[in-house]
Amino acid sequence: MSRRTYAIGIDFGTESGRALLVDCTDGAELGTQVYRYRNGVLDERLPAPHEDVVLAHSWALQDPEDYVRTVQETVPALLAETGVDPADVIGLGIDFTACTMLPTLADGTPLCLVEDLRHEPHAWVKLWKHHAAQPEADRVNAVAAERGEAWLPRYGGRISSEWFFPKALQILDEAPHVYARAGRLLEAADWVVWQLTGVETRNSCTAGYKAMWSKSEGFPVSAYFAALDPRFEDVVDEKMVRDVVPVGGRAGGLSEQAAAWTGLAPGTPVAVANVDAHVSAPAVGVTEPGAMVAIMGTSICHILLGDSLVNVDGMCGVVEDGVVPGLFGYEAGQSAVGDIFAWFVEHAVPPAVHDAARGRGVSVHEVLAAEAAALWPGESGLLALDWWNGNRSVLVDADLRGLLVGMTLATRPAEIYRALIEATAFGTRVIVDAFEAAGVPVKRIVACGGLPERNKLLMQIYADVTGRELAVAASMQAPALGAAMFGAVAAGAAGGGYDSIVDASRHMTRPSTEAYAPDPLRHAAYEPLYREYVRLHDLFGRGGDDVMRRLGEIQHDALA
Amino acid sequence: MSRRTYAIGIDFGTESGRALLVDCTDGAELGTQVYRYRNGVLDERLPAPHEDVVLAHSWALQDPEDYVRTVQETVPALLAETGVDPADVIGLGIDFTACTMLPTLADGTPLCLVEDLRHEPHAWVKLWKHHAAQPEADRVNAVAAERGEAWLPRYGGRISSEWFFPKALQILDEAPHVYARAGRLLEAADWVVWQLTGVETRNSCTAGYKAMWSKSEGFPVSAYFAALDPRFEDVVDEKMVRDVVPVGGRAGGLSEQAAAWTGLAPGTPVAVANVDAHVSAPAVGVTEPGAMVAIMGTSICHILLGDSLVNVDGMCGVVEDGVVPGLFGYEAGQSAVGDIFAWFVEHAVPPAVHDAARGRGVSVHEVLAAEAAALWPGESGLLALDWWNGNRSVLVDADLRGLLVGMTLATRPAEIYRALIEATAFGTRVIVDAFEAAGVPVKRIVACGGLPERNKLLMQIYADVTGRELAVAASMQAPALGAAMFGAVAAGAAGGGYDSIVDASRHMTRPSTEAYAPDPLRHAAYEPLYREYVRLHDLFGRGGDDVMRRLGEIQHDALA
Repeated sequence: MSRRTYAIGIDFGTESGRALLVDCTDGAELGTQVYRYRNGVLDERLPAPHEDVVLAHSWALQDPEDYVRTVQETVPALLAETGVDPADVIGLGIDFTACTMLPTLADGTPLCLVEDLRHEPHAWVKLWKHHAAQPEADRVNAVAAERGEAWLPRYGGRISSEWFFPKALQILDEAPHVYARAGRLLEAADWVVWQLTGVETRNSCTAGYKAMWSKSEGFPVSAYFAALDPRFEDVVDEKMVRDVVPVGGRAGGLSEQAAAWTGLAPGTPVAVANVDAHVSAPAVGVTEPGAMVAIMGTSICHILLGDSLVNVDGMCGVVEDGVVPGLFGYEAGQSAVGDIFAWFVEHAVPPAVHDAARGRGVSVHEVLAAEAAALWPGESGLLALDWWNGNRSVLVDADLRGLLVGMTLATRPAEIYRALIEATAFGTRVIVDAFEAAGVPVKRIVACGGLPERNKLLMQIYADVTGRELAVAASMQAPALGAAMFGAVAAGAAGGGYDSIVDASRHMTRPSTEAYAPDPLRHAAYEPLYREYVRLHDLFGRGGDDVMRRLGEIQHDALA
Repeated sequence: MSRRTYAIGIDFGTESGRALLVDCTDGAELGTQVYRYRNGVLDERLPAPHEDVVLAHSWALQDPEDYVRTVQETVPALLAETGVDPADVIGLGIDFTACTMLPTLADGTPLCLVEDLRHEPHAWVKLWKHHAAQPEADRVNAVAAERGEAWLPRYGGRISSEWFFPKALQILDEAPHVYARAGRLLEAADWVVWQLTGVETRNSCTAGYKAMWSKSEGFPVSAYFAALDPRFEDVVDEKMVRDVVPVGGRAGGLSEQAAAWTGLAPGTPVAVANVDAHVSAPAVGVTEPGAMVAIMGTSICHILLGDSLVNVDGMCGVVEDGVVPGLFGYEAGQSAVGDIFAWFVEHAVPPAVHDAARGRGVSVHEVLAAEAAALWPGESGLLALDWWNGNRSVLVDADLRGLLVGMTLATRPAEIYRALIEATAFGTRVIVDAFEAAGVPVKRIVACGGLPERNKLLMQIYADVTGRELAVAASMQAPALGAAMFGAVAAGAAGGGYDSIVDASRHMTRPSTEAYAPDPLRHAAYEPLYREYVRLHDLFGRGGDDVMRRLGEIQHDALA
């Protein structure tokens, strides 16, 4: 390529949106702009003027206008910051949390922007971590199991309450009048691309991973939806689109309106929408079978590439062409990781540690990590189950809850901190072990996300627990980089980009410069602790002891 | 009684000693003096000049000179404070933590005061909560079970590592040269009485509850001790005294030396030593069958009176005449209660709560309790097993550890605080239920100690969980009052006191003025939670899942 070209990726996260401008030649990251969502995560009440509408436990909503504001705020600032000529920006891609979905009118207007529906919680965007559709998920699973639906094993035998149809069904169950007003039910990712291009598309990644669609079979049959609820029979034809577009394609060109929002040229190629985790794989060079990317932040998402279709117990899903064309993309995940450490620091760490952090000018995490690093595996006598936000993978049960065992009067905060890190590392190992046991090899792991950079102790513990080297991605903003790569692919080689995501990845991924190797002694020392973890995992997670579910029921009754 | 007479009770606690001067007529408490032990609890290192001697995990020692200093500091100050004429002080009684024991020369000189032994940890007093003799306790239990020792069922089938012979055996195991130098092994309570009177006695309460002695059978037979270790065969005859004196008797008169220490008259009657928990029963009016006193502080000790001998699974012990002559005194206990809440406040409560407490000028406990009081049973979704210091009762296993289950990202400190209180309340109910199931009725409960006064939420939760009224003792210092009552009994009616502890209790106990009644709705709401507690209690405490023991072993290996 003689002419310098650029692509922009926009990563829509949980609390904010991030736009990144990269050089298509070598992936150099020239500028970043972040917009913190004005209304953030709505998990207690609706925004003004409807702040009197209180949300029930485990709800999590968002405001779609925050997505538009992200585009409006970040892209012009990015162009200004980098001085790049909009004419040289050849493509735009986006990635999103998922399943984050919303109901709209047939023209794409979100129902929460329709005046008489603004006070209806079900009219708003349901964020990925909205867990209130568990009864619906239970029904989705029970009916699928009863009918022997062939797609069920592809999702590890259980559908999560986070996914598309449980969320859609919850709207129907609890607010049929809102459901009736919805001309469309769609992923927020596809909605944003619709706003950018004026063209409605449905991307294969969210459809495949979150809405039980497959390339060969399409969506589940209407009889299945009818068995969930007669009114749900035609949900796909009434409120969705059967034409699902593969990722790596072009959704359309930037509309005049979106060009005005961004300062980019009208017609700039826009990629089909994608998911934050999945788009990270090519961004860190994970494009061949046996390679896994672990996106480590508030939660962890694992994307593993394989060359055949295998049903792995409890996986989130496997989708052909879902990540890289020609391969099967396996997804697994841990629903709370960084979230647990943040919870611990905010709600369970005493003033002495906060004071020490202030005194040394470091974070509370750093004080705890420094002390925890001096401990040998098992020295604290503590063990935790990392289910503060349920278990998204292997057990796929949002009703599971956290557990900590082994406390004595001598237990100290740094010991608990380390036990929590270890628990999440054990959770990762359970996932890796499950893949390998099912015959899907895990040959190498690349970590990206916020945690690898921020917490070296955590990375070393993960290496020691799994007994595998963890390479750290060179990019600190892999999802946005991956989205930009897809933007370059939307342009195509003729347009100054690339013709395939593998090509784009080869050129635009910089090599990893940091890796954590397992320490053989510590790996061996973790074996007995890991056995205890697995036993408790199975005891509490597979029905041997149902205390967590019963505590949830007792809590539910107490709150009623 | 025409003449006004007074008695003094000295309560030797874990951190300090407390002397109380009371009016023998009506138990009016005229003055109190507290001495905080200079060397406190030695659980990290020996005092100077031997501070280089580091103590292993779970050790807890004391300095016997702190006991003498308590007498020297408190009694003269008490006489000065109250202006009572020493000639009108007709008796002195003491109570002590137990089993708190030490090795001495044949003349009573503590081995830790012998110059060449001062650096030997085993030469010092082993405090009740010294838990390092668990291997010896395991042997004591295994050999007793194997030989079918008849006394074993009286102690619920298991001897605690806190008791006399495990501690004595640990000295022999780990420091045979120290054991060899010991002319005497005895309770610190009896040692103090020896120092006060010049007469060596052994009280029936500690002998019965902590050294497997009974009125009808005496100590275990030598063949049993020989089976533990051939060198231990004659431990009773070599280092103890077979003549055990019933509580309620007179040990002797105050020696010239002790009279000089205290300012009391030489020859003042001194009661046979007693135990803090047991002496609290008459102090709160618990002198009839079916009455229980719960001494609630860092731990809880339950003393229940019965009119027959029944073996209750897992009780700490039952001793004829052990508390009140003519009745069987049953002891049960929870090894950490207030200690758990203190641990939580010190190590797991975030700055925001501490700041709120400072801002309102109240304790952190009060802030947490106010918030926790608003919760309905089960509302937090949390459940704990209260074994931060093992389980002293029912399960009698110091290796058990704490557990907390049910955490989510929404869990807040006050919810955990309440769950910890509830767990200790469930622990109390397990004990009450075990007594009743064995046919020992629990007709009424009187609470004393520091917690009832300080934590009203806790008292209400205990009433709600147990479904029983909890009366609060009128005296804030029941052990010292009970000790003073025994001092009055040592004097006898002829000496201005009483001829029996029941008489003394009738006159010297003031009626309870505060009681907590169970709320029927909350009691019902606790039923499902209590069932979960009992199930987890049995699962982790009775061998169904051995994770706690294994974590202890892994910890032990990691520290080695």
